[in-house]
Amino acid sequence: MNKIKRALISVFDKKNLKPLLNYLKKYKIEIISSGGTYKEIKKLKFPCTEVSDYTDSTEILGGRVKTLHPKIHAGILNKRSNKSHQRDLIKNNFENIDLVIVNFYPFEETLKETSNHKKVIENIDVGGPTMVRAAAKNYDDVTVITSSSHYNELIEELIKFKGSTSQNFRKRMSQIAFSETSYYDALISNYFNKITNINYPKKKIFYGNLIEKLRYGENPHQEGAIYSNNKFLNIKQLHGKQLSYNNYNDIFTSLSISKSLPKNAGIVIVKHANPCGVSILKNTVECYKSALACDPISAFGGIVSCNFKVNRKLALELNKLFLEVIIGNNFDADALKILKKKKNLRLIDASNFNPYEIPRFSSFNENILVQSEDKKVFTKNDFDVVSKKKPTKSQFDDLIFAFNVCKFVKSNAIVLASNQSTIGIGSGQPSRLDSCQIAIDKMKKFIMPSSDIVAASDAFFPFVDGIEKLVQSGIKAIIQPSGSIRDKEIIKFANETDTVLVFSKTRHFRH
Amino acid sequence: MNKIKRALISVFDKKNLKPLLNYLKKYKIEIISSGGTYKEIKKLKFPCTEVSDYTDSTEILGGRVKTLHPKIHAGILNKRSNKSHQRDLIKNNFENIDLVIVNFYPFEETLKETSNHKKVIENIDVGGPTMVRAAAKNYDDVTVITSSSHYNELIEELIKFKGSTSQNFRKRMSQIAFSETSYYDALISNYFNKITNINYPKKKIFYGNLIEKLRYGENPHQEGAIYSNNKFLNIKQLHGKQLSYNNYNDIFTSLSISKSLPKNAGIVIVKHANPCGVSILKNTVECYKSALACDPISAFGGIVSCNFKVNRKLALELNKLFLEVIIGNNFDADALKILKKKKNLRLIDASNFNPYEIPRFSSFNENILVQSEDKKVFTKNDFDVVSKKKPTKSQFDDLIFAFNVCKFVKSNAIVLASNQSTIGIGSGQPSRLDSCQIAIDKMKKFIMPSSDIVAASDAFFPFVDGIEKLVQSGIKAIIQPSGSIRDKEIIKFANETDTVLVFSKTRHFRH
Repeated sequence: MNKIKRALISVFDKKNLKPLLNYLKKYKIEIISSGGTYKEIKKLKFPCTEVSDYTDSTEILGGRVKTLHPKIHAGILNKRSNKSHQRDLIKNNFENIDLVIVNFYPFEETLKETSNHKKVIENIDVGGPTMVRAAAKNYDDVTVITSSSHYNELIEELIKFKGSTSQNFRKRMSQIAFSETSYYDALISNYFNKITNINYPKKKIFYGNLIEKLRYGENPHQEGAIYSNNKFLNIKQLHGKQLSYNNYNDIFTSLSISKSLPKNAGIVIVKHANPCGVSILKNTVECYKSALACDPISAFGGIVSCNFKVNRKLALELNKLFLEVIIGNNFDADALKILKKKKNLRLIDASNFNPYEIPRFSSFNENILVQSEDKKVFTKNDFDVVSKKKPTKSQFDDLIFAFNVCKFVKSNAIVLASNQSTIGIGSGQPSRLDSCQIAIDKMKKFIMPSSDIVAASDAFFPFVDGIEKLVQSGIKAIIQPSGSIRDKEIIKFANETDTVLVFSKTRHFRH
Repeated sequence: MNKIKRALISVFDKKNLKPLLNYLKKYKIEIISSGGTYKEIKKLKFPCTEVSDYTDSTEILGGRVKTLHPKIHAGILNKRSNKSHQRDLIKNNFENIDLVIVNFYPFEETLKETSNHKKVIENIDVGGPTMVRAAAKNYDDVTVITSSSHYNELIEELIKFKGSTSQNFRKRMSQIAFSETSYYDALISNYFNKITNINYPKKKIFYGNLIEKLRYGENPHQEGAIYSNNKFLNIKQLHGKQLSYNNYNDIFTSLSISKSLPKNAGIVIVKHANPCGVSILKNTVECYKSALACDPISAFGGIVSCNFKVNRKLALELNKLFLEVIIGNNFDADALKILKKKKNLRLIDASNFNPYEIPRFSSFNENILVQSEDKKVFTKNDFDVVSKKKPTKSQFDDLIFAFNVCKFVKSNAIVLASNQSTIGIGSGQPSRLDSCQIAIDKMKKFIMPSSDIVAASDAFFPFVDGIEKLVQSGIKAIIQPSGSIRDKEIIKFANETDTVLVFSKTRHFRH
C-alpha cells in the first residue's frame, strides 16, 4: 500500500482521538471530517477540512446527507492499480481517501434508552455504514477503522510501515467492519420485526456479542464460546474456576427452572442438564436437604441454584457436598465468606437474570429450529380433576409443583413429588414406562415419604401400564396432559384404585 | 403519502419488470435508472432517465460509483413534512424520489459459484444497500421494494391508492428491506470470518431463510419454525403428513448418527431425540430387525433412518410397525409404493444430506452457546487396550461401533452392543450407574445375544461400581475415555474378571 495521504473521520464515539491525531499529523495525513467530529478535531487544534468544503456541496437535511457524494466514494472505492479508475479520478478532480475512521449513530444504545419510534429511526445511520462498507470492500487500498479500540493498533501499523498499513491489518479491519455493519443491520432488522409483530420473517438474523471464548465445548476436542445479545451476561461470577461450556449449559437449565418457581423460593439441583432434585420448602436448609434427598448420588458434582439470597446457614450445609457451581440471587456476606473457602467452587449471582420471552433456537448443521419458550402460565381452571376422588389442597399443590418441574425434565419425563419437593425424577427415556420405573426406583432408593406422593407426566400415558406402575408404588395422585385414545380406560383405572387423576391438557415435551 | 412522482429502479434481478412499468406509466411516475436496468427499461420501450443525466455526474470507476450522489440521496431521505428539508431541496434544485426499487449484486449466488476472492469482493454491492437503507429509513415518505416478488403487491397498492401506497405497506416493505440488508451483510461478514479463519468473532451473525412455519413448536402452545442457511433444506419429503418440530428434531438427530456409520450401511431408530436401536449389519432386513430388537417398545411411533436406498424387502418389514418417519438415501420405486400405502407416514429422501462442519449453536434467552461439532475421526491408534485380556477382532469392532453410537446418546450414556448392533441403551441420566442399569434392563428385557457383549461409556467411570455392574451382567469388553482418579482400580477389576478394557481418551458428552 502507498503512504496514506488522506483520512476521513466521522465518529460518534469521540474517545481517544488526540493520540491518533498526533500520529496522523506526524505522517502528514490530511483530515476530512464533518459535524461533531469536525468540531472536536478543531477543538483539539488539529487541521481539518470540512466534508462540505471538500465536496463543495453543502451539508443538507439537517445532516441526513453529508458524505453521500461521488467525490467521497470515488476517493474510497477506486482501485489504485486500475488505470481507468485513475483516469476517472483525474478527470473529475477527485482524490484518494486511504483511511476511513467511522463509527455509527448509536442505534443499539438508543433502543435501550427509548421506545420513541421517531428517535429510534433517526438513529439509523445511512452515511456511516456506506463509507465503512465501501472502505471494507476496497481493503486492498483502504484502511477502515470502526472502533476507537483499534486506534492503538492503527498507530502501531503507521509507525511500523511509515505512514502506511499492512495488507493483513487492512483485511482484518475489513472483517471487523463487515461484522459491525451486519450487526448494526441485524439490530435494525430485529427492531422492525418486533414493531411489525413478525416473529418468523423470511430472512431471520440472530446476532451475538462474544462474551468469552471457552476452554472447549461439551468435550475437550470441541471448540466452544458463549455469546449474548447484550454486551455482558446478566449473571455474574463472584468466585471460582472459569466457567465451562457444560457449566453454562447447566446454569441456564437451572435458572430457567429456578425462575419458574415462586418468587424468592426454591432450590434446584441440576446434573447433565436435567434436574435431579427440586424443592420449594420455605426453610432454606430444609429446602436444600429435600432437594438433595431426591438423588444425593447424582447431586455430587452438580449445580445448585437457589432462587433467593443464600444465607450463612445454607452455605454451611452446601459446603458439605462437592458441587461445581452454586447460584443464588446474590449471597449474604458471611455466606460468601464460607463458600469462598473452596477455591474452585464457582459462585454465581443471578439476581439480575430475567428469562426474557425471546424465541429459542438451535442449529443442526445449516438448519435452525426456532420456537417460542414453553412459558404458559396456568390457573386452577386449566386443570380438570377427572377422577371421582378429588385432590386435597396439599395434593393439588404438589401436583402443580411436580407438573411445573416436569416441564424442564428431558422427555419422556416423570416427576414424583411429596411435600413440595421432588422425590423421584425419570428423564430422557424413549419409553414413558421406563421413566416411571426410573422415578420409582430413585424414590425407593433414597426416600419414602410419610405424606402422600403425587406424580406428573410431561405427556399423556398411551396405555394404562404407566399409571398402574405408579399406583402400585404408592402414588396417590397423578397429573398428565391427556389425549390418549385410552383416556377413558385410564380414568376407569384411577377410579378403581381410588387415585386422584388430573388432566392438564397442556403438554411439556423438552428434548 | 402524496402521489409517487419519481421512481429509482436498479435491479440485478430483471424479472417481471414489464407489467410494473405499465403501471408506473399509467400513474405518470417518472423513472430514473442506470446500467443494465436502464438498458432493459429502454428495450421494453418505456421512458427513462439515466442516473448520470439526472445527477449531471458521470458514472465512474466502471460502475462502482453511480448512485452515491446527494441529489439521489436527498431525493430519498428528505422528510416531506419538514420545511427546512424542503428549503434545502429547492435551494439545491433536487427533487423527490418516492419509490426505490433495488435489489443487490448476487453476493450469495457468487459465493456458491466461485471461490475466486476478487470476483466475490466485486459482488459486494455498495450503492444498492445504501439506497435501500435510505429508503427504508424514510418509509414515512418513500416506498422501498427489494424483490420482484413484491411487484404485484405494489401494483395493487398503486391501483388502490391511485398512484400512491399506504403507510402499512411501506412499513412492511421497510421491515423486509432491513432483513435483506442485514442478511446480505451477514453473508459478507461470515465470508470474511471464513477467509480470515475467525470462528468466534467479537460480533457473530447467524442467519436463516424461513423454510416453513411449523404448526407448533415442541408443544402445541409454542410457536415453531424451521430456517436454513440455504434457500431449501437438503432433505426432501416424498410422502406423508406435514413434518412437525419434533419430527425435524428427531430427523436431524437420526441423520447425524446415520451419516457417522459406514457408507451405505446401517439403520438408526430414534425416539425423543435419543437412539433406541442401531445396527450396521449388511443384510438390510437383518439390520432393521437387530436395531428394532434393542427396544421394540420405544421404537413404536419412532423414526427409522436407513443410511442406504430402501428396498422392497425392507419396506415390507418396515410397514409392520407404526412409525412417524422413515428416512432413506432415497427409496426403490416398489419400496416407495409399499410405504406410500400408509397415508400419514412421512418419507424422507436424505441422499443429499451432508453433515457440514459448521459450528452448532443453541440459545437460552439472550445467551447463545456455540461449539464446533463432535466430529473427531478415530484410528485404531487412538485406543489403548489397558487390560491383560486383549479384544478379539469382532469385540474390537463392536467396541468401536458402540463408542460411536454413544456419541449421539444424551449423557450420561451407556451403550451395549453385540454383533454390530446395539442391544441396550441407557440415556439421559444424571448418574452413570443408573445409565448402566437402564441399558442392562433393556438388554435383559428384549434380547440376550449369543455372541460377546461389549459396552461403551460416553465419559469415564468415576468408580468401579459401574463396570462391576456391567461385568456382572455378562459384558466381556468395555470402552471408556478414562480420566478418573480410580482408573487403576478399574483396570485391576477388569484384570481380575478377565474383562477387556479399552481407553479411548476422547469424551463424548452430549446434552
